[in-house]
Amino acid sequence: MSFSWVAGGVTAAAGFRAAGMHAGITRSRRPDLALVVADGPVAAAAVFTRNRVQAAPVVISRARIRRGRAGAIVLNSGGANCLTGRAGLQDALAVGRAAARALGMPEREILLASTGMIGRRLPAAPVCAALPGLAKRLRRGGHRDAARAILTTDTAVKEAAVRFTLGGRSCHVGGMAKGAGMIAPSMATMLCVLTTDAGVAPGLLRALVRRAVAKTFNRISVDGDMSTNDTVFALASGRSGSRARSRREAAPLAAALDAVCERLAYRIVRDGEGATRLMTVDVEGARSPHEADAAARQVAYSPLVKTMLAGADPNPGRIAGAVGASGAVFNPGRLDIWISGRQVVRRGTALALSKAAARTVLARPAVGVRIDLHAGRCAGRMVTCDLTTAYVRINAGYAT
Amino acid sequence: MSFSWVAGGVTAAAGFRAAGMHAGITRSRRPDLALVVADGPVAAAAVFTRNRVQAAPVVISRARIRRGRAGAIVLNSGGANCLTGRAGLQDALAVGRAAARALGMPEREILLASTGMIGRRLPAAPVCAALPGLAKRLRRGGHRDAARAILTTDTAVKEAAVRFTLGGRSCHVGGMAKGAGMIAPSMATMLCVLTTDAGVAPGLLRALVRRAVAKTFNRISVDGDMSTNDTVFALASGRSGSRARSRREAAPLAAALDAVCERLAYRIVRDGEGATRLMTVDVEGARSPHEADAAARQVAYSPLVKTMLAGADPNPGRIAGAVGASGAVFNPGRLDIWISGRQVVRRGTALALSKAAARTVLARPAVGVRIDLHAGRCAGRMVTCDLTTAYVRINAGYAT
Repeated sequence: MSFSWVAGGVTAAAGFRAAGMHAGITRSRRPDLALVVADGPVAAAAVFTRNRVQAAPVVISRARIRRGRAGAIVLNSGGANCLTGRAGLQDALAVGRAAARALGMPEREILLASTGMIGRRLPAAPVCAALPGLAKRLRRGGHRDAARAILTTDTAVKEAAVRFTLGGRSCHVGGMAKGAGMIAPSMATMLCVLTTDAGVAPGLLRALVRRAVAKTFNRISVDGDMSTNDTVFALASGRSGSRARSRREAAPLAAALDAVCERLAYRIVRDGEGATRLMTVDVEGARSPHEADAAARQVAYSPLVKTMLAGADPNPGRIAGAVGASGAVFNPGRLDIWISGRQVVRRGTALALSKAAARTVLARPAVGVRIDLHAGRCAGRMVTCDLTTAYVRINAGYAT
Repeated sequence: MSFSWVAGGVTAAAGFRAAGMHAGITRSRRPDLALVVADGPVAAAAVFTRNRVQAAPVVISRARIRRGRAGAIVLNSGGANCLTGRAGLQDALAVGRAAARALGMPEREILLASTGMIGRRLPAAPVCAALPGLAKRLRRGGHRDAARAILTTDTAVKEAAVRFTLGGRSCHVGGMAKGAGMIAPSMATMLCVLTTDAGVAPGLLRALVRRAVAKTFNRISVDGDMSTNDTVFALASGRSGSRARSRREAAPLAAALDAVCERLAYRIVRDGEGATRLMTVDVEGARSPHEADAAARQVAYSPLVKTMLAGADPNPGRIAGAVGASGAVFNPGRLDIWISGRQVVRRGTALALSKAAARTVLARPAVGVRIDLHAGRCAGRMVTCDLTTAYVRINAGYAT
């Protein structure tokens, strides 16, 4: 299962080109329209938000992905095209038709994703007008332009790619993503496009992507509080010449998808709105995986824990309080908690920290919290970031 | 079911005295120790946190309240006495013994409640030393001193009392509370003491208090994310001479308890850490009460909704996104949302707001959000406050 990190993002895999540009969706001059295109129709799979309120591009892409084949993905920032009714569906369909014309593909092979403000019409005219020019810019080297064009409040481009061996041949998985505004709990949009030149049938690709998403993006709490637009697309060109026909054969591909998704997920957390540090919450000794997840999630979601992290001001009681409120069953008299490797709660009793230790355990870019419930053998992990005054400022004045 | 608001807080009802003072639990000079005492043992009931991690005073009071009778409540701020192990239990027992001695009551009739930092030992010695002096200060007029002594990050004393008629006699319900730091979702402590001079058996009193708490304090999201110390005590002296022997006879008492709890709950939200405005979230047209609650709760908990409220910057997409992520089942094409009486989403489509309207719908001290799912006949309500930079500042530097 070895792999190596490579450059190239969403076009690291053979058979894909990408481009990004400013189409004029908002008044800003930043890039807002991206294309990722395969050299002909390829196997395609997707994971969509489970929010009951779904954006127009999600509704359309969900229907189209059922065929298991796609040729191109159109992504825009500057507007989520959600809560826009029938007009919003017509706007999204118009964008898809314009992309199909510009690329010479059937309309049904075009997938769509949008991010930005909910509730405003997507200006379809400038997008449709921009697509022929954007199609001309498509190239292997266009991955970074595409990755840049899907950002909203993100401060950094998020790309990752690996090379691995499948059936004796060199293969690639690459991807790009944009972040949720805040990570936990978040209503902001997470978009991700994954590509591979491994050969794999749509059904197996879907299973692998769902598994990778569950282990990575859903650990940064996109799950449950998924936005109206969250989408992970995966395209497999098969251009490496190797093919995975079973779960077992696909193991190296699965590991590569996991690695790319994990790196993108971490980058999303690290770039959380206003975030200054990252926190990994590991719960062990739970009775069930569900209870381990619930405990880790409750800690990672707690505003009191997240503000404590922002202030680098350790307060183990807030962690214990969150674990106790999670619904996980355990004996509080056996609870153990460590922060950055230092034990702060032993057998349900808080340990005194020296002022120097108190300052150092949280004052680092990545903090690990480990919690042992001593109630069973199951473990769970969440990754989150701190809650800062900058987060509030960003989100108190977003719409206007 | 008529009642009138009166002064007197937790000693408005006949048969109770109270006092508060500075006992020296922390280095600050503020009052930190309170007593509420009945003239002899009376019917008692309580609702405690459902957190698995429970403070020492909760463990002790939970055991003592089973008898259904109590004579006094000792409350302190400045330390939660939680995660303090056996030593913490011994500290709490010592405080109870000292109170029993000072008041000339059996130890088992003393109830305890604590609030403040989790994980630090409660300095029992100064508390025990202060209790005889505090007992001497007990009087009908001591309600405000007691209410002041239980505050932590609260900025205002929280008292309420009503007069009502039961069985032809004038009765009272009074109470005092301290707030959760932030209201939703919160790990901070909510304490409340209710007293009445109506006569009622402990079992019926418990049922009435549980119902009142479910309708009020649990609507400000103390439930689910209850802290390690949350406690609502109720004492009934029967000194009015009237007695409620059944749920039906107790209806006026139930209404009075509801009113006092509701007023205290609103005051807690309004005094949320850093809060500048209050938001009521009403969900209607849900398939079940559970789904109505879940939808209201998800909106009230959403940091994106709460920061939007802080910025007075309406973004109906955040509300719709939270409702959609709540698990409530509805047709998104029928969703209607109003803010401060103005419709912002109609049949799943966001309506444009003029800049002037956008400024006014949220820029008021109390904002009402109404959501109609058009999926059934059930309704639910939550009350919350905004999430401001002040909240983050308060909580990023609490421990040190």
